[in-house]
Amino acid sequence: MSNRMWGGRFSSGPDAVMEEINASIGFDKKLYAQDIRGSKAHAAMLAAQGIIAADDADKIAAGLDTILSEIESGTFEFKRSLEDIHMNVESRLAELIGPAAGRLHTARSRNDQVAVDVKLWVRDTLDHIDGQIADLMTALAERAAEHAGTVMPGFTHLQSAQPVTFGHHMLAYVEMLARDRGRMRDARARLNECPLGAAALAGTSFPIDRHRTAAALGFDRPTANSLDSVADRDFALEALSAASIAAMHLSRLAEEIVIWTSAQFRFVKLSDKFTTGSSIMPQKRNPDAAELVRAKTGRIVGSLNALTMIMKGLPLTYSKDMQEDKEQIFDGLESLSLALAAMTGMVRDLVPDPAVLKAAAGSGYATATDLADWLVRRLGIPFREAHHVTGRIVALASSRDVGLDQVTLAEMQAIHAGITDEVYSVLTVERSVASRTSFGGTAPDNVAREAAGWLARLKGGGTR
Amino acid sequence: MSNRMWGGRFSSGPDAVMEEINASIGFDKKLYAQDIRGSKAHAAMLAAQGIIAADDADKIAAGLDTILSEIESGTFEFKRSLEDIHMNVESRLAELIGPAAGRLHTARSRNDQVAVDVKLWVRDTLDHIDGQIADLMTALAERAAEHAGTVMPGFTHLQSAQPVTFGHHMLAYVEMLARDRGRMRDARARLNECPLGAAALAGTSFPIDRHRTAAALGFDRPTANSLDSVADRDFALEALSAASIAAMHLSRLAEEIVIWTSAQFRFVKLSDKFTTGSSIMPQKRNPDAAELVRAKTGRIVGSLNALTMIMKGLPLTYSKDMQEDKEQIFDGLESLSLALAAMTGMVRDLVPDPAVLKAAAGSGYATATDLADWLVRRLGIPFREAHHVTGRIVALASSRDVGLDQVTLAEMQAIHAGITDEVYSVLTVERSVASRTSFGGTAPDNVAREAAGWLARLKGGGTR
Amino acid sequence: MSNRMWGGRFSSGPDAVMEEINASIGFDKKLYAQDIRGSKAHAAMLAAQGIIAADDADKIAAGLDTILSEIESGTFEFKRSLEDIHMNVESRLAELIGPAAGRLHTARSRNDQVAVDVKLWVRDTLDHIDGQIADLMTALAERAAEHAGTVMPGFTHLQSAQPVTFGHHMLAYVEMLARDRGRMRDARARLNECPLGAAALAGTSFPIDRHRTAAALGFDRPTANSLDSVADRDFALEALSAASIAAMHLSRLAEEIVIWTSAQFRFVKLSDKFTTGSSIMPQKRNPDAAELVRAKTGRIVGSLNALTMIMKGLPLTYSKDMQEDKEQIFDGLESLSLALAAMTGMVRDLVPDPAVLKAAAGSGYATATDLADWLVRRLGIPFREAHHVTGRIVALASSRDVGLDQVTLAEMQAIHAGITDEVYSVLTVERSVASRTSFGGTAPDNVAREAAGWLARLKGGGTR
Amino acid sequence: MSNRMWGGRFSSGPDAVMEEINASIGFDKKLYAQDIRGSKAHAAMLAAQGIIAADDADKIAAGLDTILSEIESGTFEFKRSLEDIHMNVESRLAELIGPAAGRLHTARSRNDQVAVDVKLWVRDTLDHIDGQIADLMTALAERAAEHAGTVMPGFTHLQSAQPVTFGHHMLAYVEMLARDRGRMRDARARLNECPLGAAALAGTSFPIDRHRTAAALGFDRPTANSLDSVADRDFALEALSAASIAAMHLSRLAEEIVIWTSAQFRFVKLSDKFTTGSSIMPQKRNPDAAELVRAKTGRIVGSLNALTMIMKGLPLTYSKDMQEDKEQIFDGLESLSLALAAMTGMVRDLVPDPAVLKAAAGSGYATATDLADWLVRRLGIPFREAHHVTGRIVALASSRDVGLDQVTLAEMQAIHAGITDEVYSVLTVERSVASRTSFGGTAPDNVAREAAGWLARLKGGGTR
Repeated sequence: MSNRMWGGRFSSGPDAVMEEINASIGFDKKLYAQDIRGSKAHAAMLAAQGIIAADDADKIAAGLDTILSEIESGTFEFKRSLEDIHMNVESRLAELIGPAAGRLHTARSRNDQVAVDVKLWVRDTLDHIDGQIADLMTALAERAAEHAGTVMPGFTHLQSAQPVTFGHHMLAYVEMLARDRGRMRDARARLNECPLGAAALAGTSFPIDRHRTAAALGFDRPTANSLDSVADRDFALEALSAASIAAMHLSRLAEEIVIWTSAQFRFVKLSDKFTTGSSIMPQKRNPDAAELVRAKTGRIVGSLNALTMIMKGLPLTYSKDMQEDKEQIFDGLESLSLALAAMTGMVRDLVPDPAVLKAAAGSGYATATDLADWLVRRLGIPFREAHHVTGRIVALASSRDVGLDQVTLAEMQAIHAGITDEVYSVLTVERSVASRTSFGGTAPDNVAREAAGWLARLKGGGTR
Repeated sequence: MSNRMWGGRFSSGPDAVMEEINASIGFDKKLYAQDIRGSKAHAAMLAAQGIIAADDADKIAAGLDTILSEIESGTFEFKRSLEDIHMNVESRLAELIGPAAGRLHTARSRNDQVAVDVKLWVRDTLDHIDGQIADLMTALAERAAEHAGTVMPGFTHLQSAQPVTFGHHMLAYVEMLARDRGRMRDARARLNECPLGAAALAGTSFPIDRHRTAAALGFDRPTANSLDSVADRDFALEALSAASIAAMHLSRLAEEIVIWTSAQFRFVKLSDKFTTGSSIMPQKRNPDAAELVRAKTGRIVGSLNALTMIMKGLPLTYSKDMQEDKEQIFDGLESLSLALAAMTGMVRDLVPDPAVLKAAAGSGYATATDLADWLVRRLGIPFREAHHVTGRIVALASSRDVGLDQVTLAEMQAIHAGITDEVYSVLTVERSVASRTSFGGTAPDNVAREAAGWLARLKGGGTR
Repeated sequence: MSNRMWGGRFSSGPDAVMEEINASIGFDKKLYAQDIRGSKAHAAMLAAQGIIAADDADKIAAGLDTILSEIESGTFEFKRSLEDIHMNVESRLAELIGPAAGRLHTARSRNDQVAVDVKLWVRDTLDHIDGQIADLMTALAERAAEHAGTVMPGFTHLQSAQPVTFGHHMLAYVEMLARDRGRMRDARARLNECPLGAAALAGTSFPIDRHRTAAALGFDRPTANSLDSVADRDFALEALSAASIAAMHLSRLAEEIVIWTSAQFRFVKLSDKFTTGSSIMPQKRNPDAAELVRAKTGRIVGSLNALTMIMKGLPLTYSKDMQEDKEQIFDGLESLSLALAAMTGMVRDLVPDPAVLKAAAGSGYATATDLADWLVRRLGIPFREAHHVTGRIVALASSRDVGLDQVTLAEMQAIHAGITDEVYSVLTVERSVASRTSFGGTAPDNVAREAAGWLARLKGGGTR
Repeated sequence: MSNRMWGGRFSSGPDAVMEEINASIGFDKKLYAQDIRGSKAHAAMLAAQGIIAADDADKIAAGLDTILSEIESGTFEFKRSLEDIHMNVESRLAELIGPAAGRLHTARSRNDQVAVDVKLWVRDTLDHIDGQIADLMTALAERAAEHAGTVMPGFTHLQSAQPVTFGHHMLAYVEMLARDRGRMRDARARLNECPLGAAALAGTSFPIDRHRTAAALGFDRPTANSLDSVADRDFALEALSAASIAAMHLSRLAEEIVIWTSAQFRFVKLSDKFTTGSSIMPQKRNPDAAELVRAKTGRIVGSLNALTMIMKGLPLTYSKDMQEDKEQIFDGLESLSLALAAMTGMVRDLVPDPAVLKAAAGSGYATATDLADWLVRRLGIPFREAHHVTGRIVALASSRDVGLDQVTLAEMQAIHAGITDEVYSVLTVERSVASRTSFGGTAPDNVAREAAGWLARLKGGGTR
C-alpha cells in the first residue's frame, strides 16, 4: 500500500490494529453538540429528581458549556485513546469540575447516550434538508411561473410524444420533491422518541423522569421499550431511504440537464457558475455540477445499502457493528444536502431557449394525438378507429415531408369524409397545450395556477 | 445454456429476441383484477361525462366482468403476441362486445393505465401486509403477556449484560413492527393519488372528471401533474424501502431463533412444523423457516436496490426501463408477506425454557450493575467511583469462582465500609428485573402492562 | 392481497406456510439435467470402486436416463411434497428401478449434491454467455471495420471534445467486452473444482474416488476441503459480479443508443425490429430494446447484492439461507444473456448517419486541440502557452461565428507570429482523426487494423 | 444542520456550492505518489522521443522529486482552489522550475492522467492486500496444524451434524481466502494495461511511445483503445467485487467468533487485545473486533454498489460522475485491509477449548451417520434402508437418554440381526473423524497434511 504510515500502524501489532478498527472519535466527534445537549438535559433531570445534587448539576452544566466553547473555538484536544466523543467529553469534564463529573453518568449508559446523540443529529439534518427541499421547490415553481406557457416537447423514451410546457415540466419535479419532503417529515415524526433512560438495555432502578429529558430535548415522548431503544437504527435507515428516493429524483433532472445542454439539444444554457470549460474550446460547457449530482445517487444508495446490510441479522441489543452506522448516515445525508444545494443553484441559473424548445415540440407530428382526439370528439368515431384514420393522414403528410397543418382539407376528407376545417385549430403546438385543460394537464392556465399555488403554499411554510 | 429451448429462441432471430425482452404478459397478468377495476371506473366516468354513450359503457362493464370471470376460472387465454395485460384484456373485450370496445381507451393511454394498475396492486398488498404485521405483533404481545416475568439474559455483543424478561424481549419486536406498520401506512397514504386521466403525459382535451375516477377507485384525489403521474414510481420504492426495514427486523429475530435453538443455547424449542429434521439424528431440528426468513432480507433489499438503480437518471416521462418495476415490486412485497407469515407461525410455535433462561441470566455477574447502582443510590458515591468499588467486589467473587451473593458482608465492607446487608436484596436476577421500573424498563409489571396495552390496541385496530 | 389463493394458503395454517417457504422445486427443477448428470457420474464411480454392484449402477443409469427423457418430453410430474429436484428425481427412480435406487445416495448428501448441480449450471451458463459475448464483439468489430473512417464527435460530459471515428467508438466496447469475457473465463476456471464426495460436510468413510467423479463431470479436480465444499457459493457471487460489470457496459451502449436515436441527435437509426412505434406518430421509434437492456443492469446488480447479503455472516457450513441462491443466480445470469442477445441484434441493426455524425464532429471548434498541438510540435512552445494562444484564436473565430479554418493566416499571425499556413492542414476533422496515430489512437488506419485483428482473433476463438 | 460552517458555505452562493461539490483535492491527494510517478515516466518518455528537451525533462523530474519530499514531510500546501491533485502538483512544479513545467502536459490530458493514477493506486493496494491475505492464510494454517486432531462439531443450520476437527474448520477458510487471492491477482493482471497516452480521448498526434511509459510504470502493455482508456473503471469495480466476496468470508468467520465466544458456546477465548470489557463484569469480553469486521462487509459491498450505480448508463467517454469513484475505491479497499489485519490478529490470538469442543461434538448422536455408513458398508444394505435402521437405534437410545455407544449389542441386534460388536468402533467422535479419509475429508491425517502443504506453499509464495 502506498500509504506506508498506515501499513506501518498495522504491522506494529494487535494494539494498533485494534485501536484503528475500534476508535470512533475520528468521525463521531461530529456529534459533539448533540452529545453535550443530551448530557445537559440528563443532568438537569437527575437534579430535578433528587438523584444528584443541584450544585453538582450546575457544575456539570457549566463544564459542558465550557467544553462546547472549546470545541467550537477549536481549542479542544480530541484524544484517540479515549475512543469516542462521549469519553472525550466526560474526561474533559472531570478535568474541569472534578468528582462531580463522575455523577453525570448515573442512570445512563453509552448505549442510550449514543442513540440519543445520533437521533438528534439525524433530526437536525432532516430539518435542514426539509428547508433545502423547500428552497429547490421554490426555485422550480418560480421557473414554472415564468415559463407556464413556454412550449417544449413532452418525451417518452426520449422521443418527442406531445407538446407540453416548460413550466409543467418544472412542476413535475415540484410534485416529486413534495413527496420527498413528506417522507422526510414522516421520518422525523417517527424518530422523535427519546431513548435516554433505557440505560445499558434494561432500564434503571433510579427514579428518573424520562418524560422530562424527552421534553427538554424536543422529543414527543420517551421510547417505550428499553431493549428496542438501544438496538434500534430504523431512524437512520428511514432517513437514508427517503434520501435515496430524493436523490433518484435529482438524478433524473440532472440527466435532463446534461442532455439538454448538449450541442444537439440546446434546450437550456447553464452559466459558468455550474459548468467547467476549456480554455481552447469556448463552446464546451461541461455540466459538471449536474453530473456530480447524478453520481451522488449512487453514493447515497450505497450508504443505505451498507447500513441495511450491517443491521441484517444482528441479535438484540447493541452490537459493535452498529458503530459503523455513523459514517453511512453522515455521508449519505450530507451528500443529499450538497446535491440539493447544487441543484437549486442550477435551477436558478439555467436559461431555457424558447425558440429551440418550440421548434422541437412541433416536429414529428407531435399533434397527431390532438387530431385523433378531435375525430373522436367531433365525429363520434371510436378511439381505436380515430387512431387508424389519423395514421393514414400522418402517413400522407410524411410521404410529402410536410406538417399536418399542410395537408389540405380535401386530402383529409378523402381519408374521412366527415372532417371539417375546424380540425386545423387543433394542429398547432400552442392549441395542443392549451387544450389539455383536464385536472393536472399541461394547459398554460393550469400551469400558471399550479405554480402560483405552490409559491403561496411554500411561502406559508406548507408542504402541499 | 442448459435450457436449449430458450437458447433456441434467441438464435431464431431478432423478432424472437425482441418478443422475449419486450413482452410483459408473463408477469403483468398478475395485475388483471386491478386493470379491470381501473377500466370499469374509467368507462363509467366517460359515460357520466357524456364522452361515450351510456349503452357503450354498459357493454364495456359487462364485457369486463366476463373477462374477470374467465381469468379467475382459468379459461382466459393470455397471448404473448398481445404483449401485456392491457392489450390482452382490450383485445378480448373487442371479441366480446365489438366496436364499443374501441371507445374504452378514449382519454386514456397505457402510460396512465399501467400506473394506476400498479398503484392499486401495491395499495392492496400494503393493506394485506398491514394486517399481517398486526397478526405478528399480536402473537408477540401474547407471548410477552405469558412471559412478562420470565427472566432471561439481556445481551449486548451476544454477551450477557443484565437480566431482562422474555416478555420484554418480545415487546422490543412489537415496537419495531409498530414502526414498520407506520411506514407502510405512510406509504399507502402518500401513494393514494390517482394517475388516471394523465393520458400519455400531457393530460387530455376531453372533459373528463378525474375526481370521479379517483373516488371510484378509492383514491383520495387525482394526481396534480400529468408528467409526474406517468413518470413516478416513488410509491413502489417507498413500499420496498419500508419492506426492507421490516425484513431487517425479521432477520434479527430469525437470527435469534437460530442461535436460541442451537444445542448450546437451548433457550427455546421450535416444533416440527417449522423445522426439518434428520431421520437418524432426532435431536437435530434445523430451524429452516427462520433461516429462510433471514435470507429473504437479502432478496427484498435486492429488489429495492434494483428498482432504485433502474430509475436512476431516467429522463421524464415514461421510459421502457420502467417496465422492469413489476417483477421487483411483486417479488419484494410477496417475499415480505411470506416471511411475515412464517415468522408469525414461529412466534406462536416456539416454547421458551424458563429454567435454561434463568440460569443463563444469572451467570457472569449479570447483577453487577445493580450493585453499582445500589452504591450510588444508598451511599451517594459518584457513579464512576461506585463502578470501581463494584469491580473490586466482582474480582473477589471471580477469584473464588462464586456468585456475588456469596461474597460475605465482611468481605464487602473490607472493600467499602458503608455497605450494609440490604445490598443482597439487589443481587438476584428476580430483584434486578423487578427494580427496572423506569418508563420502558424491564420490570415484570411494566412488561405485563405494556403487553396488555398492545393487545387491547391491536384488538381495537390501533397502531400504537 | 389481490391473489386470494395465495393469501388463502397462508391462512390455512403452519404446514401450508412452511411448505410455501421451504419447497424449492418451483425453481430448482431448472437443475434437472445437472442433477441427473451428477448422479450418473456418482453411481458409476461407486460401482468402479466396488461400493455398489455394477448391476445396480446400470439400473440407476438407465433409470436416470428415463427420467431425463420424461422431463424433457414434459411427462414428468414434479411434486411439491417432495420439496426439491433431488428428491423428485430419487423418488421417481425408486418407482422405476426399485430398491437399487436406495443405493445411489451412498457416500453423498444433498449438501454436496446441490453444490455440484448449481456449479454445473453456472458453468454451463458461463460457457453460453462466453459465446454470446464473442458474438457481440464480432458484431461490434464488423461495424468498426465498416466505419473505421466514419468521423463522429468524441464526447466527454456529453459535450463534443475531439473528432473520433465511429469504428473507434465501437471498438471501445469490444475492449470492455473482452475484459468481461476474461472475467467470465476466470470465474469458470476458479469454480471448476468438484464438491461431490464432501458428503454432508465431513467427507466420508467409503473408499470413494473423487478424482474420478470430478473428471467425469469435466472438473479440473475435486475440492480440497469438505466443509468449504458445501458452504461455498463464491462461484455464484463471482459470476454475478462479472455479470454486473458486463451489464454496466451494456447499459452505457444502451444509453448511447437511446440518445443517438433521439430526434435531436439522429446519429443512428434502429429498425422496427428493435423499436416500438405509434400508429399515429410514424416518426416515433421508441428504442424499447435499448431501454430494457439498460434496465437489466439494475436487475442483475440487485441479484448480486441480494446474494451477497444472504451469505453475509452465515456460520459454516450449510444454512438454509443458501437455498435462496438459485433464483438470484438464475435471474441474474439469464437476464444478462437476454441483454446480450438484444444488444447484439441492435448492433447489427443500427445504421449510423455519416453526414450527421461528421457535421456534429466538426462543430464547436473540436479541432482546437489539434491547433494547440501543432503550435507545440512546430513552434516548440510549451503546451500550456500553446493552449493560451489557441484560446485567443478560437475566441476570435467565435466572435465572428466562423470555424477555425476560416480565420485568416494574417489574423493568426497577429496572435502568434510563428504560425504558417501549414496550420490549416490540421484543422479539418478528417486530418484531426488521421493524425491520432499513437498506439490506441483513433486514426482510421489504426481502427481498421484493430478491427481486422479482432475479427481474426474472434474467428480463431481467441479472447485477445 | 448542526455544522453551521458547512451550512454557511452553501448559503454563501453558487461559487461556494460549486467549489464544494467540484473540488476533489480533499480526497484525491491520496494519489500524490502515483501522480508523481506517472508524471516522471511521461516526462522521461517525452524526452526519449525528442518531444521535449532532455534538460526540461531533468528539471521536471527534479521538481517532482522535490514535491514528493514536500508532501511526505508535510510541508506541501494543498490548495482547494486548484481543485485536484494534478493541478496542485503542476502548479507547484511551475513555481519550482518555471516554464519547463508547461511542457509536462504535452500529449497528455487529465483524463488519461487520473486513469493511470487510480490504476496505480488500486494495483499497489491489491498487492498489499495480497500479502495480507497470505498472512491470514498462514495464521489459519498454523492453527490448523496445531489443531489437526482437535475434535469439534461440524455444523449445518447451527445444529451439530457430524464431528470434524478444528484444524479442518480453519482450512475451510484457507480455501476461501485462496480463491480471494486468485480473484485479486486476476484483477491485478487484467488492470495492468497503461492508459497514459490516450490523451483526452482520441490519442495524440505526437510521436509518443506508449510502450515505454507502460513498461516504466510496471504495466504489461498500453491499453488498446483510447476511448476505452479514459472511460473505463472496470478495474475498480473488479477490485471491489473481489473485496466484497473476501469481506463476506471474513464476516462468516467473524460471526463464528462472536457465537463461539458467547457464554453458551465457550468454544474459543479471545484475549483483551481484541475484546473490550466492563470494569464491573469481568466475564464480559465483548468481541468488538469481530463485530466490526462483520460490519465492514456492509461497508465494502456498499462501495461496490455505489460505484456500479454511478457508472450505470454513462455515455462514453469521461463524465464527471466518474470523479465519485475515488472515495468508494479508497474506502472499500482500505476497509478490507483493516478487516484483514484485525482478523489475522484474532486468529493468532484465539484459544480453542478442546474439552468443550469435544463434548459438543459428541452430543446429539453426531455419529449416527457413521452407524448408518457401517450398516451399508458391512452389511450391504441400501443407504436409504440403513438410514431407517439407524433411526430406530437412535430412537431407542434417545428414549433412554443415553449415547449410541451405550445401546447394547443385543438391543441393536433386535433391530437388525446382522449387527456385530465391531459397530462400536465407529461410534466415538475420534473414530468418526479418523474414518473420513476421503479426499478433502476431515480425518486428522488429511488435515495435518493439508495444513503442512499450505504452510509450505505460502512460505514459497505460491497461491495454491
